[in-house]
Amino acid sequence: MSQDDPSPAGVTKGLAPVVTIEQIANWEGQEVIIRGWLYNLREAGKLLFPIFRDGTGLLQGVVAKNAVTPEIFALAKGLTQESSLLVTGKVRADARAPGGYELDVSHLQVVQLVPAEEPYPITPKEHGIEFLMDHRHLWLRSQRQHAILRIRHEISKACRDYLDGEGYTLVDAPILTPAACEGTTTLFETQYFDEKAYLTQSGQLYSEATAAAFGKVYCFGPTFRAEKSKTRRHLTEFWMVEPEAAFATLEDMMDLAERFVTYIIKQVLEKRRPELEALERDVSRLEQIEPPFPRITYDEAVEILKRKGSDIRWGGDFGGTDETLIGEEFSKPVLVHRFPASIKAFYMQPDPERSELALGVDMLAPEGYGEIIGGGQRVSDYNLLLSRIQEQNLPREAFEWYLDLRKYGSVPHAGFGMGIERAVAWICSLEHVRETIPFPRMLYRLRP
Amino acid sequence: MSQDDPSPAGVTKGLAPVVTIEQIANWEGQEVIIRGWLYNLREAGKLLFPIFRDGTGLLQGVVAKNAVTPEIFALAKGLTQESSLLVTGKVRADARAPGGYELDVSHLQVVQLVPAEEPYPITPKEHGIEFLMDHRHLWLRSQRQHAILRIRHEISKACRDYLDGEGYTLVDAPILTPAACEGTTTLFETQYFDEKAYLTQSGQLYSEATAAAFGKVYCFGPTFRAEKSKTRRHLTEFWMVEPEAAFATLEDMMDLAERFVTYIIKQVLEKRRPELEALERDVSRLEQIEPPFPRITYDEAVEILKRKGSDIRWGGDFGGTDETLIGEEFSKPVLVHRFPASIKAFYMQPDPERSELALGVDMLAPEGYGEIIGGGQRVSDYNLLLSRIQEQNLPREAFEWYLDLRKYGSVPHAGFGMGIERAVAWICSLEHVRETIPFPRMLYRLRP
Repeated sequence: MSQDDPSPAGVTKGLAPVVTIEQIANWEGQEVIIRGWLYNLREAGKLLFPIFRDGTGLLQGVVAKNAVTPEIFALAKGLTQESSLLVTGKVRADARAPGGYELDVSHLQVVQLVPAEEPYPITPKEHGIEFLMDHRHLWLRSQRQHAILRIRHEISKACRDYLDGEGYTLVDAPILTPAACEGTTTLFETQYFDEKAYLTQSGQLYSEATAAAFGKVYCFGPTFRAEKSKTRRHLTEFWMVEPEAAFATLEDMMDLAERFVTYIIKQVLEKRRPELEALERDVSRLEQIEPPFPRITYDEAVEILKRKGSDIRWGGDFGGTDETLIGEEFSKPVLVHRFPASIKAFYMQPDPERSELALGVDMLAPEGYGEIIGGGQRVSDYNLLLSRIQEQNLPREAFEWYLDLRKYGSVPHAGFGMGIERAVAWICSLEHVRETIPFPRMLYRLRP
Repeated sequence: MSQDDPSPAGVTKGLAPVVTIEQIANWEGQEVIIRGWLYNLREAGKLLFPIFRDGTGLLQGVVAKNAVTPEIFALAKGLTQESSLLVTGKVRADARAPGGYELDVSHLQVVQLVPAEEPYPITPKEHGIEFLMDHRHLWLRSQRQHAILRIRHEISKACRDYLDGEGYTLVDAPILTPAACEGTTTLFETQYFDEKAYLTQSGQLYSEATAAAFGKVYCFGPTFRAEKSKTRRHLTEFWMVEPEAAFATLEDMMDLAERFVTYIIKQVLEKRRPELEALERDVSRLEQIEPPFPRITYDEAVEILKRKGSDIRWGGDFGGTDETLIGEEFSKPVLVHRFPASIKAFYMQPDPERSELALGVDMLAPEGYGEIIGGGQRVSDYNLLLSRIQEQNLPREAFEWYLDLRKYGSVPHAGFGMGIERAVAWICSLEHVRETIPFPRMLYRLRP
């Protein structure tokens, strides 16, 4: 398309309707226009089989030499991968075609032809991961990445819809935060005019304030961790959804987490089944996810690990391998609760029955995906919280506002956070979190 | 509540149901339990009129001396502002009561009593703005802030619901970005391991890449601007929703922006009318917002300004005052399009009919609220984009990935960004954006 034709839709006026591939079944037997890109092209003598993509799906076209002008046939034959197009054709049901429909092409207009001498860099052959990551802005067009990110959208939407429906108010937590709370080693720092600010690692402390104002709240935004870990579970920038409720206990949050995850799975199964199939996800593993989820104590989890040969001792925190071992014991996500207080954060409420335990919970996904949710009940007593802050040598001044919440109408309250990328990795059954976010940020990876 | 009673809901077992104030109309004539805080207390002889809040609304209670035990009456009489409570009572319709219902209190349990000697700092009397901002974590509990942030939630939700319904895919843009594109003076910088990273100012460039993969996309996240401006329209951290579409023109985006804003207004009017009333918002101004919105060219806007006495010359950019003057001419938001290319960004497509103009659009809100949306059509031609980058002395290397989008299946495409806080300010009719976000970040304001 030349730059002085501002209206690509212009050519279609008075002609066939422009439709999306996702909606193609509604147009059987009719002539339509698809706006998209060439995904692949196969030749078989007098027939060409281009596959088009338009961002909503893939559609195979058929260009028969005897059905189009010689110019159109030549144009189709010379199409290069990822060239942009307007394609006119009639929709035909065909059980053999992927998706069940084909397009009998009658006309073709090239918007921009990718030059054959400088072809699209990502070809159907195998590419190394660094090459693909360097071309992330293009790699997103391939079927697998497309499927993953459409599922990611569905998961994000399901999180919001579920919490909205349960009466939670979205209250965005700030990204720029003052005075580092728990050490600065894993924080990204920035100069904020005359002082230092840090990128948030969690909205929880702020959500505790807003839960006292709105009853039930959630925040949902990017969080940051400047960790020098290079594992398949770590990103430096990742999204978290964090519900928090006043007048709520650990048990309430376990119930919520269970219903929440079940709802998300059901929405993905209902709305994104073709994408799960494109990823060759074993959906039977997801279909069995229904409340109740197994609930085990930390003590019981340690017993399981010992039985499986781990050398963990009571009091130690679980590593990734431990989480995998525990998660594999169950076909559904498992809730592990009541951890040693010493390995949990200062704000965790102690168990009234055993004060060495904290009322915290982790949800471990099955199939080896490890922790996807962490949460618990927060300390609601002013003096207890103050002594915790002092014991851990945290700067009291930075926590005065947080202490205020225990001074003015304190209530038992609890919440949790779910990492979106880990949930996507599990639901899509991916090897590595780098595919779960559009533009992953990791150690040595800030581009594109 | 003492710390060894982990279940505040426990007391209600076998008793009346726990309900929210928002749902109170469904419980007329029945005994219920409200979990919340004391908002205000008025005495009239043998009657006490406590107002309770629970995060979903306010409800007036009546405690009659002859209807409760002496202990309960004394407890109610001694309640301090923001003390947390479980209140049992019968719901009674009363046309005189705010909200139409009252609660005849029969029982009361204090969860935490705010000590009279250290009372809640925000009293019904007037406070200075710096004091309120320092106590933002508590200020959020007051009726006005509560109403604003519930409307903010509705606006965020309406943005997503509208775009989801129109087939847009949410594709999150990264927050941490490499190599500053347009100068670093208004960017927040952070050390990213061995290099520098910057906090994003817009997801647009990334959304152009994802629009080529998904057809129609949006991103919705926090954006940052390290501006030393201290005006009623500036925050350093603010949220933007940015739709972007392949095969779309400036006109398509003006149509979308119009439908989008109309939908948002309708949702707020439908779902958040009590909150608009609490803010004393003149809703008749919102009710008249329907497509089509007036559309004027930059040229016409300059004529309006000159007629109104401004000394603007053709070619100059509009300041806040100019935007207010133009916006005031119309009862609906006005779309101003086709600006001088010299005052717009390098990626804007030139007008094919007058190459000195860029195919950009701003939407100015009525009632003096200025720009709420900015967008337009992007350059789709590789050579034109490259020459723009070179003319403006931008580092070509940093834009190679962005140039790739014009090399591999380029299509006409367009999009816009709406600043959530400015939309909230307009819809709520607020003086200052600092009230539009839970924890505002401004020059000299990073706390709490």
